[in-house]
Amino acid sequence: MDAAQEAQKREAFRQAVVNTLERRLFYIPSFKIYRGVAGLYDYGPPGCAVKANVLAFWRQHFVREESMLEIDCPCVTPEIVLKASGHVEKFTDLMVKDEKTGTCYRADHLLKDYCKDKLEKDPNLSAEKAAELKHVLAMLDDLSPEELGAKIKGYGITAPDTKNTLSDPYPFNLMFQTSIGPSGLSSGYMRPETAQGIFVNFKDLYYFNGNKLPFAAAQIGQAFRNEISPRQGLLRVREFTLAEIEHFVDPEDKSHPKFSEVSKLEFFMFPREDQVSGRQARRIQIGEAVSQGIVNNETLGYFIGRVYLFLTQLGIDKDRLRFRQHLANEMAHYAADCWDAEIECSYGWIECVGIADRSAYDLRAHTDKSGVPLVAHEKFSEPIEVEKLVITAVKKELGLAFKGNQKKVVEALEAMGEKEAMELKATLEANGEAEFHVCTLDKDVTIKKNMVSISKEKRKEHQRVFTPSVIEPSFGIGRIIYCLYEHSFYTRASKDGDEQLNVFRFPPLVAPIKCTVFPLVQNQQYEEVAKKIAKSLTAVGISYKIDITGTSIGKRYARTDELGVPFAITVDSTSSVTIRERDSKHQIRVNVEEVASLVKEVTDGTTTWADVQWKYPTHSS
Amino acid sequence: MDAAQEAQKREAFRQAVVNTLERRLFYIPSFKIYRGVAGLYDYGPPGCAVKANVLAFWRQHFVREESMLEIDCPCVTPEIVLKASGHVEKFTDLMVKDEKTGTCYRADHLLKDYCKDKLEKDPNLSAEKAAELKHVLAMLDDLSPEELGAKIKGYGITAPDTKNTLSDPYPFNLMFQTSIGPSGLSSGYMRPETAQGIFVNFKDLYYFNGNKLPFAAAQIGQAFRNEISPRQGLLRVREFTLAEIEHFVDPEDKSHPKFSEVSKLEFFMFPREDQVSGRQARRIQIGEAVSQGIVNNETLGYFIGRVYLFLTQLGIDKDRLRFRQHLANEMAHYAADCWDAEIECSYGWIECVGIADRSAYDLRAHTDKSGVPLVAHEKFSEPIEVEKLVITAVKKELGLAFKGNQKKVVEALEAMGEKEAMELKATLEANGEAEFHVCTLDKDVTIKKNMVSISKEKRKEHQRVFTPSVIEPSFGIGRIIYCLYEHSFYTRASKDGDEQLNVFRFPPLVAPIKCTVFPLVQNQQYEEVAKKIAKSLTAVGISYKIDITGTSIGKRYARTDELGVPFAITVDSTSSVTIRERDSKHQIRVNVEEVASLVKEVTDGTTTWADVQWKYPTHSS
Repeated sequence: MDAAQEAQKREAFRQAVVNTLERRLFYIPSFKIYRGVAGLYDYGPPGCAVKANVLAFWRQHFVREESMLEIDCPCVTPEIVLKASGHVEKFTDLMVKDEKTGTCYRADHLLKDYCKDKLEKDPNLSAEKAAELKHVLAMLDDLSPEELGAKIKGYGITAPDTKNTLSDPYPFNLMFQTSIGPSGLSSGYMRPETAQGIFVNFKDLYYFNGNKLPFAAAQIGQAFRNEISPRQGLLRVREFTLAEIEHFVDPEDKSHPKFSEVSKLEFFMFPREDQVSGRQARRIQIGEAVSQGIVNNETLGYFIGRVYLFLTQLGIDKDRLRFRQHLANEMAHYAADCWDAEIECSYGWIECVGIADRSAYDLRAHTDKSGVPLVAHEKFSEPIEVEKLVITAVKKELGLAFKGNQKKVVEALEAMGEKEAMELKATLEANGEAEFHVCTLDKDVTIKKNMVSISKEKRKEHQRVFTPSVIEPSFGIGRIIYCLYEHSFYTRASKDGDEQLNVFRFPPLVAPIKCTVFPLVQNQQYEEVAKKIAKSLTAVGISYKIDITGTSIGKRYARTDELGVPFAITVDSTSSVTIRERDSKHQIRVNVEEVASLVKEVTDGTTTWADVQWKYPTHSS
Repeated sequence: MDAAQEAQKREAFRQAVVNTLERRLFYIPSFKIYRGVAGLYDYGPPGCAVKANVLAFWRQHFVREESMLEIDCPCVTPEIVLKASGHVEKFTDLMVKDEKTGTCYRADHLLKDYCKDKLEKDPNLSAEKAAELKHVLAMLDDLSPEELGAKIKGYGITAPDTKNTLSDPYPFNLMFQTSIGPSGLSSGYMRPETAQGIFVNFKDLYYFNGNKLPFAAAQIGQAFRNEISPRQGLLRVREFTLAEIEHFVDPEDKSHPKFSEVSKLEFFMFPREDQVSGRQARRIQIGEAVSQGIVNNETLGYFIGRVYLFLTQLGIDKDRLRFRQHLANEMAHYAADCWDAEIECSYGWIECVGIADRSAYDLRAHTDKSGVPLVAHEKFSEPIEVEKLVITAVKKELGLAFKGNQKKVVEALEAMGEKEAMELKATLEANGEAEFHVCTLDKDVTIKKNMVSISKEKRKEHQRVFTPSVIEPSFGIGRIIYCLYEHSFYTRASKDGDEQLNVFRFPPLVAPIKCTVFPLVQNQQYEEVAKKIAKSLTAVGISYKIDITGTSIGKRYARTDELGVPFAITVDSTSSVTIRERDSKHQIRVNVEEVASLVKEVTDGTTTWADVQWKYPTHSS
């Protein structure tokens, strides 16, 4: 199959998935009756249930397993917080405008489309030109506004809808802006991530944790990104749910006590060097990756392992999941290391989880802006002796000599580093005076021996004060769910072979509804049994759908397979019923009284369908 | 105790609760290191856990119990939706400005404060004046901007901070406004409620439900209200979580199949008539309230009963909970009936849940604005014969007579109601012509017999098409949680009687952490057992806190009582441990292997502490 056929096949598959998702209300374009808003989607009933299940599992797998401190902050955020974090300045995309109609486009998207289109469709493209376009694609994220503008002009790229000329690229801030309070004076934004709410609370959370490191805080919540022109359907949206973890750790000790629990896991990793040298992602044990220094530290490695377990337990195909390390140019200057969990779907490899060691950057930024020290303390078991430089300016003498300039001279003396101070001390002791440069006066002054005393003193210190590093696994819940839909979807022939039926093979954990209850035939006795079972399912907290319409059993199965319902209970007697598993279509016979607890056990994962099949008699229809 | 002492006592109690909540990080003023933002609060770790528990129970109690269709829509909402709903025009508070500093105040709050202050503190107040002020307080919500302005001027009310004069009151829209997309042309708001997201999806949800009524949709999510000057701490905030239900029902049949399950419940109700005639709230059976017509219909009554069960099972004191009916002036003109679940706390009676029969208002509003009919169909078992008015304008004749005005005449003829049409028909038959008023032309025209045919025809109709009524229980989750904190808080003397210790008597369902695990003494063997128990608790999904510091048992109990942890497990042997219940302080002895499942059972409510005490030996320390 050539590339074009591949692309066509992917597109057809996506259409089949998306049609099913939309028809069965997994999602709904928001405000549809008003013709919608690009990049906003509702989760309809089954989608909302899947999301709740994914979040509940996230809480269990991360928050409870690691005793994380979960918090919940508002979306409305005052400007000062997002100035400190850098979002006001840097959370931008480069935009170009159609010079006649004013329609806006993302500059890099237009350039990307142009290059891809040329490469795919131009049969006369020279090898040289092709290499150039490939190079542009690889460099896309690194281009400055000027470089991007030059390329757009150079290739003669025009507005896709009108062919009008385009403006130069300029940065557009992607935050939704608003105003807090009635005065109009207090600017705010809808948060672009949940992480900042955790950072600003570091001091309280550290105290709550008994002033001990390491600890992790977590948050699940909405985040917002006012995309210039949303594309890629459910993957690039203007409002989305993030689940973020900030694990605070001593920068001098990033080991993890539970690392051995994940170190033997092996999965696809794509280290920086392999990407640069054009190799493929390869299976590596995470323990190996850490010990070989491919992954920066154990804590980062631990979370990569836990993320792997999380995603695969949800139903993500392990062969279409890889951990890709950021290239040097992708990574923020402060980051120690960064890996993305990427999932392959019909749109290509999609970043769904970012796992970054952000070092001390965020806590330092908020310390600087707020003036509140966001630091940790390590008490020494016994005091440690340290040598400290002590500079004492003799203000009386300095005042006599420098009058109005005294303050600036004092500041300059006190600001000396150790080397400079010790040299000054030596000169003063040798010559009784020395020339000294005062930056703020922009000249040299003469310092006499009696004007300053410089010494080194030994002091006992009882603790080390430092800014913790933060390791941040950040989950795009909507993207994970979309990829899960694609990985779970398949079709199979109906019994009579006349049509292809859609199935989602969700694990019970994820399935929006855990089981359906059907009476085999319309009959009051069976309906009573069905209702009794329904009631017992509600009591144990298992979601179900009861269907007492007279539709054929085959049709009822098809309907619920399409919702990914794992178990179907058919009432064909008043004492026992059959339970059918969705993918194998195997059926077992179970007493009415046992049904609810059995479904609950398989759903909770305390038992498996394979075990259940051993225990209960098979039913052949 | 007089009123002032009462107020002082309430204030002291509130301070004790709030201090504990803030110290133990149940909540944190948001962005505290930047000196915060009025009306924004974070849920810290225990608060966040309480919130998650309340929402999980809400899902179980409402969504799963009634098989509701839960959906999840974005917060960012385009203007057209909120124009249709009336929020752009009417979601306002009246504001006054300090004429010198520009500081904004809620006009009604200033008037309310003035009246209350006078009534409480002015010893020379005449009986007449007192009556007047009380009347103003009662009428507060009904005053027009002009009336409110006149009162403020009349009483000489000035800006509280500066004593400067105040502007006239004018409406301030309470929605946070923003702009969707980069053009700046598409206005949007952060939703003020989640309900609109459900209404606009009615058509799809009705289809999802097999085109059958009744059904309910539900949504949990953030809502926003840009308060003019937030007061009352956690009760009046600018961002909050709502949980809303929209139960769609045939307006001709508002019975509820499960009403009998709640009809015998008895609780405090405060019907409109009792409020007007100055009586107190009284205990009424909800079944009685419906049959006596105090509550408009069974479905409304059913939800009132379910809300009562929900709140009291969370731990709200049933004696400080009442259902207050809206007075005629409080209720929207379209509402059939409306009740608020009010909870008494130190701030007085607080509206926490609104339960309204909003009739067909919302669906009609969106039908009108969007042009998409949001209606339901009732198929008749056999077709029904109905008489329909048929007006046929003979355009040729009308064109000859009225030329350019033809269209307006045709429209006017076709728009006639039955009575007018039959009168016109009679006149035309008697006189051959008739005078006919055309509004859009603002004049009478002469209609001749050959210009229009009017008749009544019998037709068979197969279905009834109608706009469903909606019954809306809407829960302010943050308010419920705050009231729960107050109702759960008490103090008791420490063992030595030296100090008062704080306790939250949360039911296990609500408790942020279900149990603590302590080794009795610092000892490696006991620590191993504690860790083993911790692991088994994680496996069954029970949140716990492990404390292996050497602090005294008494102090450790005090610490966790203050977090409302219901069970404390103390490891004092390697085979069995003690479990202490928080409020009774009773202890039982349980095998290590059984601990996790026992705590889970009591927490899930499948067994009770009373039963457990029978089953296991008592431990006396």
